[in-house]
Amino acid sequence: MRLLIKDCYMLSGDGDTDAIKGDLAIEGNRILKVGADGDLPPDWKPERVIDGKDYLCLPGLINCHTHAAMTLLRSYADDLPLKAWLEDEIWPIEDRLTPEDVYWGTMLAILEMIESGTTTFSDMYFFVDQTAEAVEKSGIRACLARGLVGTGPQGESGLLDSKELLERWQGAADGRVSIWLGPHAPYTCPPDYLEKVLKLAQDYKAGIHIHVAETAAEVQQIEDLYGKTPVRYLKDCGVFQFPTLAAHCVHLTEDDIDVLAENGVGVAHNPESNMKLASGIAPIPQLLSAGITVGVGTDGASSNNNLDMLEEMRSAAFLHKVDQMDPLALPASQALSMATSGGAKALGLQDVGLLKPGYKADIILVNLHQAHFYPRNNLVAHLVYAARGSDVDTVIIDGQIVMEERKVLTIDKEQVFQEVEERAQRLNR
Amino acid sequence: MRLLIKDCYMLSGDGDTDAIKGDLAIEGNRILKVGADGDLPPDWKPERVIDGKDYLCLPGLINCHTHAAMTLLRSYADDLPLKAWLEDEIWPIEDRLTPEDVYWGTMLAILEMIESGTTTFSDMYFFVDQTAEAVEKSGIRACLARGLVGTGPQGESGLLDSKELLERWQGAADGRVSIWLGPHAPYTCPPDYLEKVLKLAQDYKAGIHIHVAETAAEVQQIEDLYGKTPVRYLKDCGVFQFPTLAAHCVHLTEDDIDVLAENGVGVAHNPESNMKLASGIAPIPQLLSAGITVGVGTDGASSNNNLDMLEEMRSAAFLHKVDQMDPLALPASQALSMATSGGAKALGLQDVGLLKPGYKADIILVNLHQAHFYPRNNLVAHLVYAARGSDVDTVIIDGQIVMEERKVLTIDKEQVFQEVEERAQRLNR
Repeated sequence: MRLLIKDCYMLSGDGDTDAIKGDLAIEGNRILKVGADGDLPPDWKPERVIDGKDYLCLPGLINCHTHAAMTLLRSYADDLPLKAWLEDEIWPIEDRLTPEDVYWGTMLAILEMIESGTTTFSDMYFFVDQTAEAVEKSGIRACLARGLVGTGPQGESGLLDSKELLERWQGAADGRVSIWLGPHAPYTCPPDYLEKVLKLAQDYKAGIHIHVAETAAEVQQIEDLYGKTPVRYLKDCGVFQFPTLAAHCVHLTEDDIDVLAENGVGVAHNPESNMKLASGIAPIPQLLSAGITVGVGTDGASSNNNLDMLEEMRSAAFLHKVDQMDPLALPASQALSMATSGGAKALGLQDVGLLKPGYKADIILVNLHQAHFYPRNNLVAHLVYAARGSDVDTVIIDGQIVMEERKVLTIDKEQVFQEVEERAQRLNR
Repeated sequence: MRLLIKDCYMLSGDGDTDAIKGDLAIEGNRILKVGADGDLPPDWKPERVIDGKDYLCLPGLINCHTHAAMTLLRSYADDLPLKAWLEDEIWPIEDRLTPEDVYWGTMLAILEMIESGTTTFSDMYFFVDQTAEAVEKSGIRACLARGLVGTGPQGESGLLDSKELLERWQGAADGRVSIWLGPHAPYTCPPDYLEKVLKLAQDYKAGIHIHVAETAAEVQQIEDLYGKTPVRYLKDCGVFQFPTLAAHCVHLTEDDIDVLAENGVGVAHNPESNMKLASGIAPIPQLLSAGITVGVGTDGASSNNNLDMLEEMRSAAFLHKVDQMDPLALPASQALSMATSGGAKALGLQDVGLLKPGYKADIILVNLHQAHFYPRNNLVAHLVYAARGSDVDTVIIDGQIVMEERKVLTIDKEQVFQEVEERAQRLNR
């Protein structure tokens, strides 16, 4: 489709300190022109024009780390000690999940993500065929990894699943689906298992999505097992020879930060999950100073408990200011870059995450005509410090309008609500 | 009006760990019956029935500390060092504010607060006559204090203003307006000035709303001046002989906590302002353990930058978990109590803040038929950990429906937007 958004406020996703005003043109699944940047062919005529007067237009948000189907466990057995919550509550339910449960749980997550302005998510879970089907149908963009645990009975079948996913889904849905490898964490993946994972990465040129140094206990466990930090462990196993997305990175040494920087590892920062589960505060300002690419993630809905990236971005900005006791730590402009272009870069998506001619048309329109956006002093500060997911009015992914006036066009909302409610009742019995 | 909300989920505001289901009846400005609790006269017939099937019904949220008219400065000159922001940016603009600016800035704040489920706010600012007019017209409930600075040229006129406010507005608008005295902070109110404030408190039986120990610098300043902590200073000046609301209380000693507890001082906790301005983290779990009444506040919109109490409640719950490194610190049930009955108690509102027969009908209905509230595992966790201001569908204050299907019935939204936008352009020139 040829789409023209006329006279809107725009943020590029690349360190903006305030919005500019202008037109934005889309041709097919690409951005053609942003304000004065880019050229329209002389005979170019839009098929559709959107009046941008009250819209703030920006790249879609990128949720760098989640477990989408865990929406089924949202607010289930919260406020328990971590071990009791995980071992007595979450794992027994996860054992009962069917492929269809994962499909509907993922669909609910995608609905929630689109409704709050997320256009790409990076997932780690199981029954990934069903996740990919939900991605294909809904129109969202996603990087999907089958979670791999080398210490359990499913180590080998997980590798086989991953191989099949790479063959079946890599680049599917017009390139909207990417398949990553998902070795769960250093403490669940011993060296010989990681070796098999890396062989697959080599054969299929796939990236590695892994939890790293989320809790102090995990760091201690790896220290006890291997006499080194989780980051050094992964480095020594050769993981960082491949594009790597390291989720959490809460407990790092200065050497760890150097290693991540030298090896171009991307980090997925999940501030609200780390706060709610009391994991700790990741040293994000230091990571950014070291030149590390940082994206933002919500983690699964059972540890957050929503998938609202606008909220997550704000929590990141607020948390690091108070943690550093510095009101200049992580300014609004930097938080916004992390949640857009930073996330895209961490996921290796070369032409996603910026409002820029030639980039994929993954774009959201935020409705500015609301009490909490007046007066319009600074739209970057408004977006990061005052916005909420429900402010997103329109979502365009890969050039296709998937939400308009807050109605998601690709998903039958009522059917999703009914399916997940019935499934949750079965699972929680 | 006689109003019946049929078959809704309900939270009382008093430490709920999950919702109950039932009917809620309102007669005039009071709650008559909540589920099985309370009696309907045999011939009682509602004038209006609301189908509560998809609603979560709870006491309206209580914003314990804000400066409402500062919406005019929302996102103005953010991400600057605190001193430069305050002295070079905020104060010069505040010097230019007119009474009409304060009226419209407050009206914008009230619109935003009602839209996000706040039914009572506690304010400290100037031109309070205009604030009171906005409260009267909009239908919200408020405790209003004229900010008093004893070290500046307006010390005496501020006292005179306060006296006039007490005579003119105490108990006005059917009891929705209360007037408090607002000595700004220990470092702006020397002992002889506080003495005059307390004389007024004595004469008019008014409470004291004051900033306390917000920053480490302030604590140092009071230590240098008087050789004691801000809390001890206020105690020794006799402030705590009167009902006192202490805003912030970030930097406290154990002795301070004992003093606050022994003297029944209420605390207004503003987690997001304290995070964004990098003031520090208030020891809320310790205050609660000491039996101190704690409410939640947003602070002004220039240091937050919205007035969304659902978000503020979540930030409180998340922040203290990570600060204490304990996922059980400040559970959802406790955060909800703070934002409802805790706030009412801190403001001395005896019959506000609970869903209970005989209490004022200050009630909000949250629309549960949304992606981020499925599946319905636990509604307290949903509300505290997943909700956003825009989920509030209906707001009832003092028995009057002031918002329905997200439309605020008492305020002309378009006029407010136009007024504040024009005024901001004049002020920021």
